[in-house]
Amino acid sequence: MTKRSAAAGVPVARDVTTAGDVLCGYLQLQAVEFLRSLRLHAESGSGAEDAGEAVRLLRRSARRVAGTLHVYRPLTDTAWTDQLRGELAWLIDLLGREYAYAARLARLRGALHRLSGADAADAPGGVPEVSGGGLTVGAARAGALLDRQLTLARTRAHSAALQALGSSRFHAVADAVAVLASEVPLDPAAHDLLAREALPCLAEQTHRRLMDAVDALPLSVAGLPYNAEALVHGLAATPAADAPPAEGRQDAPWHHVRRLVRLRRYAQEVLDEQHQAEEEPSLSVRLLGAGQALDRHREAAGAAAAAAAAARTPRIAPATAYALGVLHADQRHEVEAARYAFGRIWQRLAVAAP
Amino acid sequence: MTKRSAAAGVPVARDVTTAGDVLCGYLQLQAVEFLRSLRLHAESGSGAEDAGEAVRLLRRSARRVAGTLHVYRPLTDTAWTDQLRGELAWLIDLLGREYAYAARLARLRGALHRLSGADAADAPGGVPEVSGGGLTVGAARAGALLDRQLTLARTRAHSAALQALGSSRFHAVADAVAVLASEVPLDPAAHDLLAREALPCLAEQTHRRLMDAVDALPLSVAGLPYNAEALVHGLAATPAADAPPAEGRQDAPWHHVRRLVRLRRYAQEVLDEQHQAEEEPSLSVRLLGAGQALDRHREAAGAAAAAAAAARTPRIAPATAYALGVLHADQRHEVEAARYAFGRIWQRLAVAAP
Repeated sequence: MTKRSAAAGVPVARDVTTAGDVLCGYLQLQAVEFLRSLRLHAESGSGAEDAGEAVRLLRRSARRVAGTLHVYRPLTDTAWTDQLRGELAWLIDLLGREYAYAARLARLRGALHRLSGADAADAPGGVPEVSGGGLTVGAARAGALLDRQLTLARTRAHSAALQALGSSRFHAVADAVAVLASEVPLDPAAHDLLAREALPCLAEQTHRRLMDAVDALPLSVAGLPYNAEALVHGLAATPAADAPPAEGRQDAPWHHVRRLVRLRRYAQEVLDEQHQAEEEPSLSVRLLGAGQALDRHREAAGAAAAAAAAARTPRIAPATAYALGVLHADQRHEVEAARYAFGRIWQRLAVAAP
Repeated sequence: MTKRSAAAGVPVARDVTTAGDVLCGYLQLQAVEFLRSLRLHAESGSGAEDAGEAVRLLRRSARRVAGTLHVYRPLTDTAWTDQLRGELAWLIDLLGREYAYAARLARLRGALHRLSGADAADAPGGVPEVSGGGLTVGAARAGALLDRQLTLARTRAHSAALQALGSSRFHAVADAVAVLASEVPLDPAAHDLLAREALPCLAEQTHRRLMDAVDALPLSVAGLPYNAEALVHGLAATPAADAPPAEGRQDAPWHHVRRLVRLRRYAQEVLDEQHQAEEEPSLSVRLLGAGQALDRHREAAGAAAAAAAAARTPRIAPATAYALGVLHADQRHEVEAARYAFGRIWQRLAVAAP
């Protein structure tokens, strides 16, 4: 890498920490967390909740290791870290699926109840508006169908995750992380570069990639409430159609920004490690908020797709299909709402950013 | 009526126009318009477009006569005008139905096309995403079903309107309006009351009724974009349910405000007539905007209900039901968007109002 010297005008005499030191410190911390959650998982035995929490922590540190190796790649032994990064991506995806299906089902169940006015206390005269456990027949059947399909998918994802955690491929990943915990394979130059010069420069590169990706988003449309953009392909995915996933194409740039927001957050965590303090607390908070809006965007998009997929089940009743249609549109509006929310956060972030 | 003297502190010597004069002037103008459109309608013959325009103008003046008689009722011969007002309400409702069904069908057709991404030029590779005239099978079938049902309803409404226009009941209304055109039956006191004292006071009473009705609206919720409130009963009206129309109950206060906004507009038109100029142009513009938002609210609510009703048709295909579900939710979001728009206009209006 080339050494930048944007902040080199006024050198601070005492800050001679090297980029290698800071990066090692951060990565070792995450690697130790990874190994700890792995132990937690092994000890959790039959406790599904504990095991779930252990997997969550495992994914958390795995994401940070992979993200940091991505942002600060030029400082590392890239042959070794690129390999680990690929394996971590495989692991993160695999371990995330069970959680994603569970969250999707919970979201859709919640939406079905909300859309049934099941909790509405404002019904004058207290007329019971819904039948069968607070749901209409269509909503109840749609719920049962989604429950069946997503629980099956979740169970399969759980088995796949368990199998993966017992595989030799995973053991190789765990061994590599153990190496990281003791000594991070760095590029020799990283030990000569000053942290305050090398690290912000690489974080800035990620920041610029993020800015470019956000520039490519249709934020001017998304910033108008009720622009109805997220549902423009709402019927291009109806049961009988073998159409390409038009909504997926529309969502892709937002998912891309979501990943970059994450990278930027991890990049910032390393800078914070360097300063032993939150360097830009307001930036961190906003990045977190922006990321949460885009998480919601992705979850709602996934839920909308699941409702549309369920509606393609053969021989369902019209009432079930109708409820799934309402549900699909509702979740697409959640997608639109998340874009609006992201746009609002981004406006403030763009002003505050370096 | 009791004579108010709120503005009597500083009497303007030259403005001695009576309330009766102003009211007569405005009502005679509207009555003449009414009779002219009636003649237009008779002359339109087989020209459906001309006939439609004539009916539109007829309703326009009928609404203004009825509204003005409502707001300025104490100045009129109430026994005579209450009777006419009731008959005008019957006529306005009857003549409006054909138009409402046509508008509803156009709105739903437009939504189906929009939701099918039929006009989307952003599809990379130009992959045709929809089959059969730019629509998916489900959307096309839903469209055909709505077309059938709403065209039937429209045809019936057209016949009913034609029949009404030939009825002795209608002729009696036309005769009464002709009376209005020559001499408005007023309360004798109206000829003694000063316009600048009596008229603003009655307009103010309508304004206060409007303010009270708006205060009863959940504007703080409606003002948050994507509050998802309009769809909370989205599945309480699924095909298989014999639930009470929960969405109708939720919409009613908004429809009530819509009627009061209209009354307030017509009240203002009389005040403008009094001053021979637009007294408060910004108020008039905002009342018009608020009314348009609530018109859109009512139209979207009607369209959403029509989609839900169509989904209750026996033996429809699941794909059709799914498309109707998406359509229902889409139109309920239009309802929510209209409430949001009204809230924004009202904020400004509340500041500008007298």
